Amino acid sequence: MSLARVHNFAISLDGFGTGEGQSRDAHFGHAGQRLHEWMFATRWWRHKRDGQSGGTGGVDDAFVQQHALGIGAEIMGAGKFGHPGWHEDPEWKGAWGPNPPFHTPVFVLTHHVRPSIEMEGGTTFHFIDASPAEALEAARKAADGLDVRIGGGPTVIRDFLAAGLIDHLHTVVVPILLGRGVRLWDGLEGLEKDYEVESISSSSGVTHVTFTRAGV
Amino acid sequence: MSLARVHNFAISLDGFGTGEGQSRDAHFGHAGQRLHEWMFATRWWRHKRDGQSGGTGGVDDAFVQQHALGIGAEIMGAGKFGHPGWHEDPEWKGAWGPNPPFHTPVFVLTHHVRPSIEMEGGTTFHFIDASPAEALEAARKAADGLDVRIGGGPTVIRDFLAAGLIDHLHTVVVPILLGRGVRLWDGLEGLEKDYEVESISSSSGVTHVTFTRAGV
Repeated sequence: MSLARVHNFAISLDGFGTGEGQSRDAHFGHAGQRLHEWMFATRWWRHKRDGQSGGTGGVDDAFVQQHALGIGAEIMGAGKFGHPGWHEDPEWKGAWGPNPPFHTPVFVLTHHVRPSIEMEGGTTFHFIDASPAEALEAARKAADGLDVRIGGGPTVIRDFLAAGLIDHLHTVVVPILLGRGVRLWDGLEGLEKDYEVESISSSSGVTHVTFTRAGV
Repeated sequence: MSLARVHNFAISLDGFGTGEGQSRDAHFGHAGQRLHEWMFATRWWRHKRDGQSGGTGGVDDAFVQQHALGIGAEIMGAGKFGHPGWHEDPEWKGAWGPNPPFHTPVFVLTHHVRPSIEMEGGTTFHFIDASPAEALEAARKAADGLDVRIGGGPTVIRDFLAAGLIDHLHTVVVPILLGRGVRLWDGLEGLEKDYEVESISSSSGVTHVTFTRAGV
């Protein structure tokens, strides 16, 4: 069975998945990089992304590496693909350079559809104006039997959770208070009833919280 | 130095310290007892409160027992002392029976002051209409060199945090989504800058998060 999975989705202790004031230079608004420092410090990130040695090799690193395992497609929101207004720039190809770190088809949920963009390294961006269920159906076809990653941002993950479409959710609670931005958990009262919930704190200070749907 | 401390303050994963719809029969509203089941399962609670044997003896039990150590007075909000409207009942003496579990002076913040009530076991309820700083000054005098516990609810703790008056904060994140109620963290952006923050998950499923002010 092809699962819908969320990995490494960082939120502040007060529940914000992104800050306020997102722009081309501030992908997470006033949050800056503070939600992701635990990730940049892992061995996996330092080796694969930065080409450096060292890094943490504990629970943070183990979780980070699940990101790509068994994934055949991603779904992301327009706010992850680019800063507000990117759809007015016909040359915008995402914030990840010529070889984005997805290496699969990526479905961008947007009201401003455009032709697909084939990038280096196996990533192809498809632009669709669709409901969560429709988007998941399209991504599953493209994933060819593998799982689909729901890549964020917070609004997209929340919409998929509310629609009952997420099988595995991995969030990372970072011990900072952002105070403002976009919340992950709004409108999801009782979500835990459909999942096995586990928590594990890391020496880095973050706490990994996983929701795994019973029976999958 | 006499510190202002918060202990065992439970919040849901989405940040609510109490549910919606509080009443005489539902002290935490629709949250019911779900924020405190980890506490009821500890050895300390089962032995001291329920007169039973057994219970968990790990990190939850260690934290629970800090509640009374070195405490000489408590400050609580009107919403902890009683259900909405308790001030219209001249016989209301709190929800804890004739021998409340405080055993110290307790300062109840309320716009409806009344004469102090002496209970069994060393608890005396004092009713004051005061700012956080004024209340803390009064409680410190009564604590006679010991620490002051800020007992909640969420609004009171938030007000004391915003005023910079809390030296040690112990919150317990319970992996449920309440969806509605009173949030603890609103309006506290950047709080972590003044504290050492630590997190530790328990096998019970909760995560203990402590904020300890630098230098105290």
